[in-house]
Amino acid sequence: MTYQLYYWTGIQGRGEFVRLALEDAGADYIDVARVAGDDAIQPFLDGERDGARPFAPPFLQSRDLVIAQVANILHALGPRLGLVPEGEAARLQALQLQLTIADLVTEIHDSHHPIASAAYYEDQQDAAKRRAQDLRMQRLPKFLGYFEQIVVRGGGHALGTHSYVDLSLFQVVRGLDYAYPQAMAALSPKIPQLRKLEARVAARPNIAAYLASERRLAFNTNGIFRHYPALDGGIAAQD
Amino acid sequence: MTYQLYYWTGIQGRGEFVRLALEDAGADYIDVARVAGDDAIQPFLDGERDGARPFAPPFLQSRDLVIAQVANILHALGPRLGLVPEGEAARLQALQLQLTIADLVTEIHDSHHPIASAAYYEDQQDAAKRRAQDLRMQRLPKFLGYFEQIVVRGGGHALGTHSYVDLSLFQVVRGLDYAYPQAMAALSPKIPQLRKLEARVAARPNIAAYLASERRLAFNTNGIFRHYPALDGGIAAQD
Repeated sequence: MTYQLYYWTGIQGRGEFVRLALEDAGADYIDVARVAGDDAIQPFLDGERDGARPFAPPFLQSRDLVIAQVANILHALGPRLGLVPEGEAARLQALQLQLTIADLVTEIHDSHHPIASAAYYEDQQDAAKRRAQDLRMQRLPKFLGYFEQIVVRGGGHALGTHSYVDLSLFQVVRGLDYAYPQAMAALSPKIPQLRKLEARVAARPNIAAYLASERRLAFNTNGIFRHYPALDGGIAAQD
Repeated sequence: MTYQLYYWTGIQGRGEFVRLALEDAGADYIDVARVAGDDAIQPFLDGERDGARPFAPPFLQSRDLVIAQVANILHALGPRLGLVPEGEAARLQALQLQLTIADLVTEIHDSHHPIASAAYYEDQQDAAKRRAQDLRMQRLPKFLGYFEQIVVRGGGHALGTHSYVDLSLFQVVRGLDYAYPQAMAALSPKIPQLRKLEARVAARPNIAAYLASERRLAFNTNGIFRHYPALDGGIAAQD
């Protein structure tokens, strides 16, 4: 059983949430665009392939199934990879948390592109400064505070045991550390359980091997998490 | 079996996507905040209730299950209400489309609140004008063009037969007609199958009865879909 993952080359992007699940589970997969180029993606977007037509990457092909949208892909993969507890209630709870992570990821993306995703950052920098300040002062404390309490209740895990949600929380924390180091330095004392979760995920053998490999691209200013010093800062009004 | 829906009073908001599914199926439900006030919502957000803790409304309570995030709620309700075709492939495809609708809904919301969701529109109007122009000229044609092709392939339905996705597409088209009448007048010739779907959903007996009832609030400038004439306009560069 080989999975085919389709995502743009050159960035971690939203594809990384899927990659982490496949890597953690030791699944057999091909990162198609890294082998065949980004051109391999377009025929799916143009509706020229069987299966559900994706609006955008990432999408995953598994035999005749094409699955798009990160949370949907992880919802489908969870039971197959042993990355979600059994039972409908747990699967719904995992999906709910993953969708809340997706909302946060969109807000993080929009902090550097608040006006138009297809336009340059430099052409929307003033708006980005205002949106990033709101992200740092209002949204990150609210989202990360929520996830901290979820992890506290889950005894160190989002769902009481290891799952794809933990892997995604790891990725969000690492991405924010790269993009907003000052804000995260100020927030870190408030999220000790998320920090422990991050360290525990990083130490998982398959994840540690993946992070040390060439398959793990570095964060950069083409992805979702972008480090623009003009956007970073503290989390309180005086910062 | 009585469902309890929790959502802010006074607006359709994201709760409306869930309401339409419950109404269409003739399900027994209570719109709790409309009976008990918005204060009924807070204890769930504060983690003082059993079940998965929601980050935000809407959420649905069904016996001891609490389910948040619109797409997750509809994914859970779909089989129970007969609003999704049977089988994993169809359920994943429905979820994928619903998540793409959710992305569009967020972009529509952010067109009037591109900087800070908790701040006033009037304090971010200049940025909103730029973002709304991008929505009209780039994003709406792309999203609605995608859904038009999905509905063409589905023979007039998103999934080949009636489903919760059709109900949500109806809501998005109606909401955009209210918020962006000029843009939608320009786009309508390009989305004939979405227009037919909209009319077909509106004519479903339970939906027609609901739309004529006091339970269906009017669109207004507190919700996701807001009509601000300064933001509306055409879809081409010269508009």
